[in-house]
Amino acid sequence: MAQLRIALAQTNPTVGALDANAGKLVEWTRRAAERDAHLVVFPEMFLTGYPVEDLVLRASFVEASIAMLSAVARRLADEGLGEIPVVTGYVDRAGLAPRVGQPKGAPLDAVAVLHRGSVLTRTAKHHLPNYGVFDEYRYFVRGDRLPIFRLHGVDVAVAVCEDLWQDGGPVSVVAQAGAGLLVVPNASPYERGKDGVRLDLVARRAREAGCALAYVNQVGGQDELVFDGDSIVVGADGGLIARAARFTEELLVADLELPLADENVSAGATPFDAHDGTTITVERVRVSTEPVAPYPPEPARVAARLSDLEEVYSALVLGVRDYVRKNGFRSVILGLSGGIDSALTATIAADAIGPDRVHVVLMPSRYSSEHSVDDARDLVERQGLHSRVVPIEGVVNAFEKEIELTGLAAENLQARVRGMILMGLSNEHGHLVLTTGNKSELAVGYSTLYGDSAGGFAPIKDVPKTMVWQLARWRNEQRGPSEFLHGFARPPIPENSITKEPSAELRPGQRDTDSLPPYEVLDKLLDDYVEKDMGGRELVEAGHDPDLVARVIRLVDIAEYKRRQYPPGPKITPKNFGRDRRLPITNGWREARA
Amino acid sequence: MAQLRIALAQTNPTVGALDANAGKLVEWTRRAAERDAHLVVFPEMFLTGYPVEDLVLRASFVEASIAMLSAVARRLADEGLGEIPVVTGYVDRAGLAPRVGQPKGAPLDAVAVLHRGSVLTRTAKHHLPNYGVFDEYRYFVRGDRLPIFRLHGVDVAVAVCEDLWQDGGPVSVVAQAGAGLLVVPNASPYERGKDGVRLDLVARRAREAGCALAYVNQVGGQDELVFDGDSIVVGADGGLIARAARFTEELLVADLELPLADENVSAGATPFDAHDGTTITVERVRVSTEPVAPYPPEPARVAARLSDLEEVYSALVLGVRDYVRKNGFRSVILGLSGGIDSALTATIAADAIGPDRVHVVLMPSRYSSEHSVDDARDLVERQGLHSRVVPIEGVVNAFEKEIELTGLAAENLQARVRGMILMGLSNEHGHLVLTTGNKSELAVGYSTLYGDSAGGFAPIKDVPKTMVWQLARWRNEQRGPSEFLHGFARPPIPENSITKEPSAELRPGQRDTDSLPPYEVLDKLLDDYVEKDMGGRELVEAGHDPDLVARVIRLVDIAEYKRRQYPPGPKITPKNFGRDRRLPITNGWREARA
Repeated sequence: MAQLRIALAQTNPTVGALDANAGKLVEWTRRAAERDAHLVVFPEMFLTGYPVEDLVLRASFVEASIAMLSAVARRLADEGLGEIPVVTGYVDRAGLAPRVGQPKGAPLDAVAVLHRGSVLTRTAKHHLPNYGVFDEYRYFVRGDRLPIFRLHGVDVAVAVCEDLWQDGGPVSVVAQAGAGLLVVPNASPYERGKDGVRLDLVARRAREAGCALAYVNQVGGQDELVFDGDSIVVGADGGLIARAARFTEELLVADLELPLADENVSAGATPFDAHDGTTITVERVRVSTEPVAPYPPEPARVAARLSDLEEVYSALVLGVRDYVRKNGFRSVILGLSGGIDSALTATIAADAIGPDRVHVVLMPSRYSSEHSVDDARDLVERQGLHSRVVPIEGVVNAFEKEIELTGLAAENLQARVRGMILMGLSNEHGHLVLTTGNKSELAVGYSTLYGDSAGGFAPIKDVPKTMVWQLARWRNEQRGPSEFLHGFARPPIPENSITKEPSAELRPGQRDTDSLPPYEVLDKLLDDYVEKDMGGRELVEAGHDPDLVARVIRLVDIAEYKRRQYPPGPKITPKNFGRDRRLPITNGWREARA
Repeated sequence: MAQLRIALAQTNPTVGALDANAGKLVEWTRRAAERDAHLVVFPEMFLTGYPVEDLVLRASFVEASIAMLSAVARRLADEGLGEIPVVTGYVDRAGLAPRVGQPKGAPLDAVAVLHRGSVLTRTAKHHLPNYGVFDEYRYFVRGDRLPIFRLHGVDVAVAVCEDLWQDGGPVSVVAQAGAGLLVVPNASPYERGKDGVRLDLVARRAREAGCALAYVNQVGGQDELVFDGDSIVVGADGGLIARAARFTEELLVADLELPLADENVSAGATPFDAHDGTTITVERVRVSTEPVAPYPPEPARVAARLSDLEEVYSALVLGVRDYVRKNGFRSVILGLSGGIDSALTATIAADAIGPDRVHVVLMPSRYSSEHSVDDARDLVERQGLHSRVVPIEGVVNAFEKEIELTGLAAENLQARVRGMILMGLSNEHGHLVLTTGNKSELAVGYSTLYGDSAGGFAPIKDVPKTMVWQLARWRNEQRGPSEFLHGFARPPIPENSITKEPSAELRPGQRDTDSLPPYEVLDKLLDDYVEKDMGGRELVEAGHDPDLVARVIRLVDIAEYKRRQYPPGPKITPKNFGRDRRLPITNGWREARA
């Protein structure tokens, strides 16, 4: 057996920011070297960030990625970091003749091993995910190699992200080829409860491969996706050795005892049947054959697990923080009604970027109840936000002088006047407008186009109403400060905002239950229809009320256009009304459903 | 040789409307039977419409399609139409065990041959397109058959859409297997100039297959896509025999002289190497072996070609007409400024659904010039539209009493007040709001979120400004009535709207050229950057001004968020800011570009 200290650089790149990402690679490699690591591994496509979407179809972008890889290899050597092998993701290109339907330029979701100023070996993802939020047949052609480099006498194999999730392919070849360690760069977005699935998968693949496995994940928000880190090291038996925190950058260092490679196996290429109809070529190269001198291992780091609500809340805070920062905003603005949705949104924003950068506007109308303004003011005081009051009555009256609006049209007008005030202040002062709608409302179209849906980012877009209340209660029980929680002196959300009956307050005495079933009933039905894709008959068989099923299916389907016009927001479920669910607007199937 | 009269049902289904589409199938089969056709062919996925997007991931939808296929086969027989074989597209399911990353339920983009009340044979698309607007790896698993049915002694092979565009696969097997006719159902969306490419492709594949080829395309608007028909029949030498009109439903009937099949080749299955790494199984079945009695052929129909502008204009009219109709609207509303964009949009709307269903609102501000209102009134008179005047000054003043806005924020306010007036009237009266922005504006973000971009459909979203002028002049030269042109007594667009200098009129004396280069310069640059995906260096090498390149790249990239919030509109180019171009909002690549 031989010792090896590996460092997993669980880092937060920005899509497209090649210079900044390369700088981060050098900085984190230095940190790994300072910890005396023998190997450092970065996430999938770290140099370009993930997902790059159609940027990768631009030839100049792929060229820039390839050039940056060589440049950063040289820079590492120039800065005295050439001896430590660096495994990093980037975008490369396959030398294929162009053909109809293949991505232009045949890009590869590639990983390279950098050493002594140059690229030691390269590989690329073999299994291209094309479901949920992934569209990789659009963007990449598949790789067909498994590089194994010998480092201090240990054979280290390299595979990429999805290759771990699918049977067959490079990971299935590791056991036959033989390796002491498999390192896998990933960019695997957050979903509720995914950490359990991930650990089981990593453990299973380690046992199948018969070697230790190091799983390195990206962290950070990128538009709708939040990457949660959760990098993992397991032994050949699948037992957990080390695990990084979630939703935060971390250099996870682990000391491993690994089998020495067979000295008789020489460098070179060998084809293997990959058990998925393809052939994978194992390419062996050598860095060093001499084991490291024995040293005392550091104690293993295993980050504490998060509760379900803590996990979701952290994802929302990180999603907002990174969207604001990576898009160059310095402050946010939102409407505060006194209700629970805007209260939670304001709190997430304050936790994400600090209360001194959160601006709220109270916009009472003729139908606002007294407690609404009081509850909003209470929250402002608890959190120390910037606030102002802008009554909408005068503007609404001016509109109604020009055009006569009744019923829903008049309700929408009020929501739109509020949206315009926020957008006006955003345009004037540069704040990012946050919308405050929750997933239950969005699902059934209970919102106003260009009204409450006007804005740049939607923090609780993917949070069902029943969970909005849960998160509010949970947040009020926490004490800050921590990375995701500001240190407020009192619980940040007024109890009254949590306990009072929900109302849009767009007409006298309005309550949400005038138009919708209780949220406990609605959310369960929406989960079955939207997340589980059940049809009308299945929903009724599952015990939902047939009339409600028919009504909700109709509401959900008709609201597709509104949802498409809604701002992006952090994804926490499999179907977040973003890239995960793509329905036609014109959809004649309603008639056949309930 | 044997005669055969084939009927290509170039028809307009609605996505998801299984009942309505099945009814249309029966109706058009009856029309084909009345023309004494021996075979009728419908487009790809005709029963479900195309594209169904994530509907196909719902098990109940796939089941409904399969059940509808059987039901319509029985209904054809019940209505005395069982003798004529009907080739139609639908969605089926492959009997595959579920696996990670495969579409749930393994749907197939399938085609069946119906005869005497039941399904004679089935196949499914082999090559799944996954570029441009297509995401078929997300939705389907591939087929691996080539059915050949013997009809009146002639062997008729069946392949699906993309199988024609790619080398290898079922079409490459036709020549080896031997057939007298290849029929290909399609759902191939319109793009400028695609008709030439399509005819060349069909002719080439016929020569390769060594048999006549019948290409049947869907027609009609479906959200952003417009299907243009253009169904084609060519002989085994690739020579054009018949061609349907574009953008309109048509039963294209063609009399063919086809080789008799070899009587010694019997029914059953035979595997062939498909030259793309897969095996295709040819499945032969028999309908009838006796050739039809000789009859006098009808004269061949070859529709006249359209000019480039006529083609584009027809696509826009059909796109608007079908979006309105298929979504259950009966009227549209839009703001009329006196400028060319809203003038052309109003004209397209009047041509699409008739001037009596088009409502326009003149919304002058303190900055509107006198000619603006005059030109708008002139258009209303020429076209006989419903119109009203709603000055925005009072509402703008009411806003400015509450919040102070300057510069761009004040300009945006005016655009948003107009958007709110249109949305209010839409909510009150049920009109669909049309936005009037063109592609050049949209590209550089020269529009106001929730202002001029508020609405449900954007007729000229994919039309560059220079082409807006060309289309306006072209339309004024036409005489209606025709399927795409209303019969106006005078040219419908006031000359002054075409010739005057473009201005948003949001501040005193404003002109578009204050902020943008002349549109001739801008449109050429946008075409190279957006459509051709050139990088900064390439653009400069192509002769564009370096400062302008840097500025426009920055404008285009920053406007990505605005474009995502823009309504859908008919696609006429390869990159229409819809499903064809998907860029991250958070995009740090700007720095590296110009």
